[in-house]
Amino acid sequence: MDKLQILRDLAIIIIIAKVFGLISRRLKAPQVVGEIVAGLILGPSILKMVNSNDFISGVAEIGVILLMFSAGLETNIPQLRKTGMKATVIACSGVFVPLVFGTALYMAFYGWAPPSSDDFFKAVFIGTILTATSVSITVQVLKELGKISDEVGTTILSAAIIDDVIGILVLTVVMSFRDPNSVISDVILRTIAFFILAFVVGILLYKIIKAIDKKHPHTQRIPIIGLALALALSYLADKYFGIADITGAYVAGIILSSLDDSAYIDRKMDVNSYMIFGPVFFVSIGLQTDLRTIDTTIMLFSVCFVIVGLLSKIIGCGLAGFLCGYRNRDILKIGVGMMTRGEVALIVSKKGLEAGMMDGKFFTAVILLIVVSSILTPIILKMLYSEPTNTN
Amino acid sequence: MDKLQILRDLAIIIIIAKVFGLISRRLKAPQVVGEIVAGLILGPSILKMVNSNDFISGVAEIGVILLMFSAGLETNIPQLRKTGMKATVIACSGVFVPLVFGTALYMAFYGWAPPSSDDFFKAVFIGTILTATSVSITVQVLKELGKISDEVGTTILSAAIIDDVIGILVLTVVMSFRDPNSVISDVILRTIAFFILAFVVGILLYKIIKAIDKKHPHTQRIPIIGLALALALSYLADKYFGIADITGAYVAGIILSSLDDSAYIDRKMDVNSYMIFGPVFFVSIGLQTDLRTIDTTIMLFSVCFVIVGLLSKIIGCGLAGFLCGYRNRDILKIGVGMMTRGEVALIVSKKGLEAGMMDGKFFTAVILLIVVSSILTPIILKMLYSEPTNTN
Repeated sequence: MDKLQILRDLAIIIIIAKVFGLISRRLKAPQVVGEIVAGLILGPSILKMVNSNDFISGVAEIGVILLMFSAGLETNIPQLRKTGMKATVIACSGVFVPLVFGTALYMAFYGWAPPSSDDFFKAVFIGTILTATSVSITVQVLKELGKISDEVGTTILSAAIIDDVIGILVLTVVMSFRDPNSVISDVILRTIAFFILAFVVGILLYKIIKAIDKKHPHTQRIPIIGLALALALSYLADKYFGIADITGAYVAGIILSSLDDSAYIDRKMDVNSYMIFGPVFFVSIGLQTDLRTIDTTIMLFSVCFVIVGLLSKIIGCGLAGFLCGYRNRDILKIGVGMMTRGEVALIVSKKGLEAGMMDGKFFTAVILLIVVSSILTPIILKMLYSEPTNTN
Repeated sequence: MDKLQILRDLAIIIIIAKVFGLISRRLKAPQVVGEIVAGLILGPSILKMVNSNDFISGVAEIGVILLMFSAGLETNIPQLRKTGMKATVIACSGVFVPLVFGTALYMAFYGWAPPSSDDFFKAVFIGTILTATSVSITVQVLKELGKISDEVGTTILSAAIIDDVIGILVLTVVMSFRDPNSVISDVILRTIAFFILAFVVGILLYKIIKAIDKKHPHTQRIPIIGLALALALSYLADKYFGIADITGAYVAGIILSSLDDSAYIDRKMDVNSYMIFGPVFFVSIGLQTDLRTIDTTIMLFSVCFVIVGLLSKIIGCGLAGFLCGYRNRDILKIGVGMMTRGEVALIVSKKGLEAGMMDGKFFTAVILLIVVSSILTPIILKMLYSEPTNTN
């Protein structure tokens, strides 16, 4: 690979990604949307200025690891414990309903597929993409409204965290089916083995790193050890347990989330992330999308995908909310608060693309879902909170 | 390239580099020494755990760019103006002496060759390899010592930049004896053109970025714009002006060094640098070295090559430093600071190999010079700086 090419590509990617990210934010959409659009424009669809290559996809891979590690680091374990059953029920239902609806949608478009067939898993993968909530936009809205620590706010937050864990579990199980030799019981055993190992090794490592952190707080070695752990767990998860590497990174983040310096590590990861690795990751999604391949079928599918994606979360979470004793407007708040999708949906899609479980054309649908949900959630949530809930 | 391989390699590199870096610091040597040794141990010479590949060399390349950009950002422009003349004299002498000594060394081993003979140019080529200083390791050491913007530090940095330009001129002259397409007046014109362009565009860009910085201080866009500029200038310098890319990164840093937020940009670059890019760059030097290929026939030449390479720079730069009014320990600091060779020596060797002006066996000598100078420079420099210079 030409080294000059790397310099050129990177210069173009980071500056154009930032410009489109800022435009996107100006238009009240998340910056990631702009970064993906930047990739679409630079890539094969329009300008053909940058081609995806080994270096870019390597950097993008580190980008995902950093993002998932950071998500794990931000896990609030005490809050997770406190909210208990309600959030778990809501999260489970909020994963299950979109999974089923998404699978059904794919089959409605591309024909019935018998269980265990290749097409069946492709259908299930479309459902899997719909499972993971991205709570960052909801968090921002709830903060603005000062409602983040009330009962509904806490429930949404905890449910979104549990939802992430369950979503990753679903992805892990679904991904294992790409291997025709894989047996379901094996997959489940390996997954359980990984989490037990991660738990045991996690406690041990946590104590060691806590001791180092206590002795040398705020030193370079702390985020470096953290990053190395994230990379190592990602590698081990994928290599020896057949689990998606991002699961390893996420678990590494959870392990270190109770560290005194967890916010310090997170800040350092963030600098690496927003400067080079994050933009390259999101732009590379655009680079891999060739808009010229989009036909009317995929357009129609995308629109249905967005509708199903939004409604299935509202139904899944709302229904569970009702069963947990929430009433009236609170049910809608929970459903709408949970319906946003973000970078995790993209990460899952990209994993599917690499594993041959998803066609590149479905990226359009995923991107559309992120854009629409990111724009609708704040608007609807604000409406739900602004009117007096005297019917309650 | 296997993505899992990337995760594994990166996890190993950053943790082992940190461990050896800390051991190195404990032994009163700079961390870079430990990082290079980590590379030697991980690489083909000993453990064979990590192989250099496209991804690693790409990340290493960004690592050099970040280092040189950072060095440029820390440039004290009034100081550079003050040291400009001295640095030029030091650079010229530091190119000329190694060129002559290297040529003489080859003839001492392989017999006298009359000017214009094939063997004469082969001898001159060995001298040419010795001309280019690689300042990145010195930069790292001076940064660790906090001495990068004092008078000696600025002189070394400026001299190294000028040295690069002169070294490239020498290479072009020597190469032009084989390649009729290369004309020396063209090379000089292109070099002048680059610096004029960098100056004009630099002033323009500086004003634009200053305006952005004033409106949005301490925002992500400031370091991102800076990094993009560094990458772009590196690319343009190498691609269109035949100048080493690191010179472009350094010039980009100088352009932005007067910005209010220059220290802010530098801090953000530093996080990227120490976490991933820096360690990968220094480890990759060790990875590229296979100590097993060194056989007895070339061993004696290599040892002499290293000694001549180191001493000729110290003599050349030190003598010029003395003539410029530096005294005592400062002369040695300049000589030792300039004696490191790096990727430029490798690039020159590769070009000579391709042009049939250098035998492949001399690669061992070049790599040995890079490793020895990379390890000795930080140790000696630190010694020179650590003791009080009360004799001055």
